[in-house]
Amino acid sequence: MLNISVIGGSEVPPETCAIAREVGRLLAKGGATVFCGGLSGVMECVAIGVREENGLVIGILPGTDPDAGNKYLSAAIPTGLGYARNFLVARAGKVVIAIDGSTGTISEASFALTEGKTVISIGSYEITPNKKGEGRFIKARTPQEAVELAFQIAGEE
Amino acid sequence: MLNISVIGGSEVPPETCAIAREVGRLLAKGGATVFCGGLSGVMECVAIGVREENGLVIGILPGTDPDAGNKYLSAAIPTGLGYARNFLVARAGKVVIAIDGSTGTISEASFALTEGKTVISIGSYEITPNKKGEGRFIKARTPQEAVELAFQIAGEE
Amino acid sequence: MLNISVIGGSEVPPETCAIAREVGRLLAKGGATVFCGGLSGVMECVAIGVREENGLVIGILPGTDPDAGNKYLSAAIPTGLGYARNFLVARAGKVVIAIDGSTGTISEASFALTEGKTVISIGSYEITPNKKGEGRFIKARTPQEAVELAFQIAGEE
Amino acid sequence: MLNISVIGGSEVPPETCAIAREVGRLLAKGGATVFCGGLSGVMECVAIGVREENGLVIGILPGTDPDAGNKYLSAAIPTGLGYARNFLVARAGKVVIAIDGSTGTISEASFALTEGKTVISIGSYEITPNKKGEGRFIKARTPQEAVELAFQIAGEE
Repeated sequence: MLNISVIGGSEVPPETCAIAREVGRLLAKGGATVFCGGLSGVMECVAIGVREENGLVIGILPGTDPDAGNKYLSAAIPTGLGYARNFLVARAGKVVIAIDGSTGTISEASFALTEGKTVISIGSYEITPNKKGEGRFIKARTPQEAVELAFQIAGEE
Repeated sequence: MLNISVIGGSEVPPETCAIAREVGRLLAKGGATVFCGGLSGVMECVAIGVREENGLVIGILPGTDPDAGNKYLSAAIPTGLGYARNFLVARAGKVVIAIDGSTGTISEASFALTEGKTVISIGSYEITPNKKGEGRFIKARTPQEAVELAFQIAGEE
Repeated sequence: MLNISVIGGSEVPPETCAIAREVGRLLAKGGATVFCGGLSGVMECVAIGVREENGLVIGILPGTDPDAGNKYLSAAIPTGLGYARNFLVARAGKVVIAIDGSTGTISEASFALTEGKTVISIGSYEITPNKKGEGRFIKARTPQEAVELAFQIAGEE
Repeated sequence: MLNISVIGGSEVPPETCAIAREVGRLLAKGGATVFCGGLSGVMECVAIGVREENGLVIGILPGTDPDAGNKYLSAAIPTGLGYARNFLVARAGKVVIAIDGSTGTISEASFALTEGKTVISIGSYEITPNKKGEGRFIKARTPQEAVELAFQIAGEE
């Protein structure tokens, strides 16, 4: 199983959506199973990309209604945990790709780092791990760079 | 999304495995996405059945290793929650089909009932909901009966 | 830390409440920290008993409002997990005392057994663990018997 | 119930410990129930402070052993969720006080902000909420300022 989680804002401008979609396409082409939060914005755009390449994209939803996810998901898991489902999104992937976003995305990215996972970020904010055992926070400039790094790092681990 | 969860023992005799496999086949034929605990026994047998009909079966794993699941899963979600992942399995489906099992299965079935979901049981134990708002516990004798009931009830809700 | 969890129905007759209250009193006298689901019925009655003996009783709440718990709790933890907080109640105690209840209580008791914990039951239903590694399900007739067993078993582990 | 969560690094220099201890003292004096992650560093120092003023401090532990917490806790809840217990620490308090720390603390602080809670930070990093519904991130220079703000904001909500 090559699980990659993609996290990011639920309200994003078209250029960010285009980045997420391209990330989705490239991950699906490479054979990854993609996990996301299942809702709008980056979560929807990445799902569009994955489906364009006939990949598998699974949404981990905050609520209890499986139909609350975006319509591009291959499958949706209603957790009923509220935003605490963020931690499950971070745990689902061997590597996490973060695209923009606000505090929800930061909670997922920093949690992944705490658990020793690499977070590859296409976006503006920085998180600086400073403790032994924490994962690496790596900036990528393009979807291609982010996905290549993700596959490389997932392969090492 | 038509999510059905299938729960049951991790160590089962061949005849129970055959039941789980047939349940998996019938759910996949009917277009359901099947959720299970991702490990051995009923969880593996139902996955075999789902894949025989080219369906989608997702394992919600207790540990953090995505490769700890059985090899028939379409996708595996490592949760790191230990057996507390049981409640996620119960929440994932609109209806839960229970096939045999011990206390782990009972925890999932009774939790689903607490949340108002119908549990269709092919097996020996009984749970008797006695409070308003709890779901129904229905016995089925065959995989066919269980799956027909599951689709009917999921359609009503 | 000697944590004991007490679980049971949210709507109970006076005689069941009296049992829970006596369990609470005896646990507090013995120096246990008592965990419960924080709401009404057995959860409230056990809290009354604990406070009568100046003990510590902590409610693990399903919602996000700390004030939704009963007024006898020493502290209330709002989890926002819904009934999935049941698993936390079961995990909090070294031993679990179950007093009556319906599917919610069964989900907690069976989950505790799955995790290898002893469940001491004053009530009508039976759970029969049948797998290696599962805890023991023991019936007690009186609060005294239940609490003595709980302290004895917690001391062994 | 006036619950305040205090989060921060598990390895801190003496001056940070002194800050956490003073925060604990002032919260206990003001009648708050203090929640923390239950381990070392800020979690232990705040507990020392709370106990010096005879307050109540509850540790929400990542593991399953109630005795893994620091010895100053009034009560310890073993969750078995690993670092996913971070979200429970963030949910437990009406307001969160963050003292230094690395990615674990950032995951708790950003999660609290996502859920609309105010985070009062005595430390070096910044989180900038940029979405409607997110909580406020406020910097405080001293324990006195942080605790006064915490009580004031908890009272408003």
